[in-house]
Amino acid sequence: MKRFVDLAEMPRDEVLALLELAQRLQKQPEPHALTGKILGLVFFNPSLRTLASCQTAMLRLGGSSFVINPGQGSWLLETRDAVVMNGAAAEHVREALPVLASYCDALGIRAFAEGKDLAHDLAETTFGQMAQLIDKPLINLESAANHPCQALADWKTLNDLAVPRAARFVLSWAWHPRALPLAVPAAALHMAAQRGMDVTVLRPEGFALPPAIMERARQAAASSGGSVRETSDRAEALEAADILYVKEWGATSCYGDPAADAHLRASLTDWCVRADWFAAAPACRVMHCLPVRRNTAIADAVLDGPRSVVQLQAHNRLPTQMAVLHQLLKP
Amino acid sequence: MKRFVDLAEMPRDEVLALLELAQRLQKQPEPHALTGKILGLVFFNPSLRTLASCQTAMLRLGGSSFVINPGQGSWLLETRDAVVMNGAAAEHVREALPVLASYCDALGIRAFAEGKDLAHDLAETTFGQMAQLIDKPLINLESAANHPCQALADWKTLNDLAVPRAARFVLSWAWHPRALPLAVPAAALHMAAQRGMDVTVLRPEGFALPPAIMERARQAAASSGGSVRETSDRAEALEAADILYVKEWGATSCYGDPAADAHLRASLTDWCVRADWFAAAPACRVMHCLPVRRNTAIADAVLDGPRSVVQLQAHNRLPTQMAVLHQLLKP
Amino acid sequence: MKRFVDLAEMPRDEVLALLELAQRLQKQPEPHALTGKILGLVFFNPSLRTLASCQTAMLRLGGSSFVINPGQGSWLLETRDAVVMNGAAAEHVREALPVLASYCDALGIRAFAEGKDLAHDLAETTFGQMAQLIDKPLINLESAANHPCQALADWKTLNDLAVPRAARFVLSWAWHPRALPLAVPAAALHMAAQRGMDVTVLRPEGFALPPAIMERARQAAASSGGSVRETSDRAEALEAADILYVKEWGATSCYGDPAADAHLRASLTDWCVRADWFAAAPACRVMHCLPVRRNTAIADAVLDGPRSVVQLQAHNRLPTQMAVLHQLLKP
Repeated sequence: MKRFVDLAEMPRDEVLALLELAQRLQKQPEPHALTGKILGLVFFNPSLRTLASCQTAMLRLGGSSFVINPGQGSWLLETRDAVVMNGAAAEHVREALPVLASYCDALGIRAFAEGKDLAHDLAETTFGQMAQLIDKPLINLESAANHPCQALADWKTLNDLAVPRAARFVLSWAWHPRALPLAVPAAALHMAAQRGMDVTVLRPEGFALPPAIMERARQAAASSGGSVRETSDRAEALEAADILYVKEWGATSCYGDPAADAHLRASLTDWCVRADWFAAAPACRVMHCLPVRRNTAIADAVLDGPRSVVQLQAHNRLPTQMAVLHQLLKP
Repeated sequence: MKRFVDLAEMPRDEVLALLELAQRLQKQPEPHALTGKILGLVFFNPSLRTLASCQTAMLRLGGSSFVINPGQGSWLLETRDAVVMNGAAAEHVREALPVLASYCDALGIRAFAEGKDLAHDLAETTFGQMAQLIDKPLINLESAANHPCQALADWKTLNDLAVPRAARFVLSWAWHPRALPLAVPAAALHMAAQRGMDVTVLRPEGFALPPAIMERARQAAASSGGSVRETSDRAEALEAADILYVKEWGATSCYGDPAADAHLRASLTDWCVRADWFAAAPACRVMHCLPVRRNTAIADAVLDGPRSVVQLQAHNRLPTQMAVLHQLLKP
Repeated sequence: MKRFVDLAEMPRDEVLALLELAQRLQKQPEPHALTGKILGLVFFNPSLRTLASCQTAMLRLGGSSFVINPGQGSWLLETRDAVVMNGAAAEHVREALPVLASYCDALGIRAFAEGKDLAHDLAETTFGQMAQLIDKPLINLESAANHPCQALADWKTLNDLAVPRAARFVLSWAWHPRALPLAVPAAALHMAAQRGMDVTVLRPEGFALPPAIMERARQAAASSGGSVRETSDRAEALEAADILYVKEWGATSCYGDPAADAHLRASLTDWCVRADWFAAAPACRVMHCLPVRRNTAIADAVLDGPRSVVQLQAHNRLPTQMAVLHQLLKP
């Protein structure tokens, strides 16, 4: 494995092997596996779990890391090509990233969607250009339309809970004060499809996931024996659901238009997951990648109740990150 | 020892044993004592000594650490329960803290007083709620009304200087441009009382320490053979003092009212410790936890003169932090 | 070696020995040379290469580091002596720096020029006062008028490229939206002179380097067999140049006057290095310390073309930093 940027780049078997490695590292620590190895971490956006799990994953394997936050202690970095740099950015990623890569053994980069041009974001234009600058193992710590580290942890969580391969997985939109990126819904949807699950995307009108994301997931489902459909009918979607994966995202019908997005979501505050959502799905578990806003996206009673497995998901960020790093860096 | 959050939770003998351990680690380094151990550090507020001493304490013992600054590189965290999170905070401590605790072997948290409601702050409501979320060894890196790491370093400083147990310890208010928390005065007062010293709290009218803090200290003094009294008469307090512990804090008579506090302190700029304070206490040492504003709280001549032991105090943050971590984490 | 703050403090032979050590460490890693050693890093200003190379240099040698950013997670620090601290700074460097030094084995400090008083900056008043507070090995990570870590990496880059000792080295001013410090031009000029090169400083009227900087370089050239001259004639300077070292800096004729500086530089946007600069210097290499603004200081075509060695310079920050730390800290 030379890079970990998209689960879709990996055959299903390779993902399963990685999950087995994660399981093994959890049971049989390898505190010297990555002795002397250094992971560079570049965060263009805030992070809590990814930041802490990447650092501790290296430490648990005997390695170490450093962190660069462009704009906070380090220069603001320009990502657009061929611009006259007379604005706020003091440096271009074309200089900064190869330099940082030359100091370390692997590089992780987080760069959220710009949220202006849907085609640009779906094409992973920014992350793709940055990836080409780096000749070291690369980890996607969340790009415009992907979050493979989260997806891998989520897959492990489903396995840990012994959720059957063909179980009913519902990815549901939830309310948020403003538009959020498509990275996690796209990654969670693809993960469930690749795992072979019976997947339903539940979202209000105006928030359908882009055709490219749906199509990618359908292809993954086709080869894994799963299925993917979508609906805006909550009752229909949730009936007999085994997993409700909750996520907030922006209106795709007016992508890049905050005012139109705000108008659309104004009437959707009932998309906060509450206990009564589960009337027809008594055994349904609730997943969320975190951070989650309590009582806007998910009610306290659900997050604090026995359905919630968000802590297990978050905890699984560590062993799966260890597996990814072990695979990329173990001599 | 399962947690280090309040010296008052520890019998005097345990504190003495911890100080002995600090002394021993200073003389006989144990560079492998905490090999493989990870300390997570969560700073809701700025830090210099605590941040650096915690990190170096782990390194000197063979372990390591990571740092999370909510709002700076990591999400702003909500601490209040049962709120609808549609404001600035993207995540609740109920999610964030157990996640971080699951990645590491011990967690340290700094969360200053909110400074609005005295009862809320004195009850350690926020820190207490956070502590309940964590099932790993926990260190209080300064909470609303406590700073046990500083108090332990201060105690060691008194020992290093061979200050007699029954010496005269004066905790004096000093001027600051605005109201500061009660954490350090409360911790220093309790430490001196628990050590068995003859303690006087010197403060202008309106700045008396809350009865709960005074009472706690009196109880500690009662069981250690010390004494605690208070006055606003500087000459009386300083006569024959052995130690002057200087600290800035907010007006308790109008807690949470910045305008009233500003009005009260406007006439108190002479509470800047100057050489002439020591006319009747020629051998008196000056302590301060740092950071200190020069020539507002303490004059240059005092800080740069032979009375000042603030550097020794700050330096002692390292061996005492090492002792705490050794105690909490040594297999 | 007790400190690394200025290449001019070192005889030429010592610099050469340091460069040999850097070369050796690149070929023969010493992953345990600095086991147990801790480097404290204090950044008053942003950093990317210095921050990452210092941390990785320690890690590659078996040591570790911690980072303090005054004003970002740590208190704002006052550097002026004898002031009444009733402003934004909560702590004085007179307290903070000895404390931090007491926790670690060596301290690195970055503190850019204040850009108000040329004499103050050229005298290294601020850095010099801070240096006096520290009784541990000290590294200058860029001060008001010096950047020895960059200069050492640049010297190694010239050696790596087998640039002859007496080759033609041109230090050229380049355009930037605002005034930048004199640290890198001063350090690069002195380095080239100390190496023994035929040095020309090329700059528009109003941007001549201060006499003190020129004189220091002339002295270095005198003892190394090199030479130093200056001109504002680009064609004359670039003819047959072997190295063009590009750097942006503020107008010295109106130092500390941003409006006058802006007026002066308004007509100088053609000082962006483009391909046609090299008509009479076909083999000329282009150096820059980074960060560089593309298409304002240097055009894309030059940075992305074969003349540019900026990546090699940046990469050399690591082995040279390792050599400095090895020299300062190896038992």
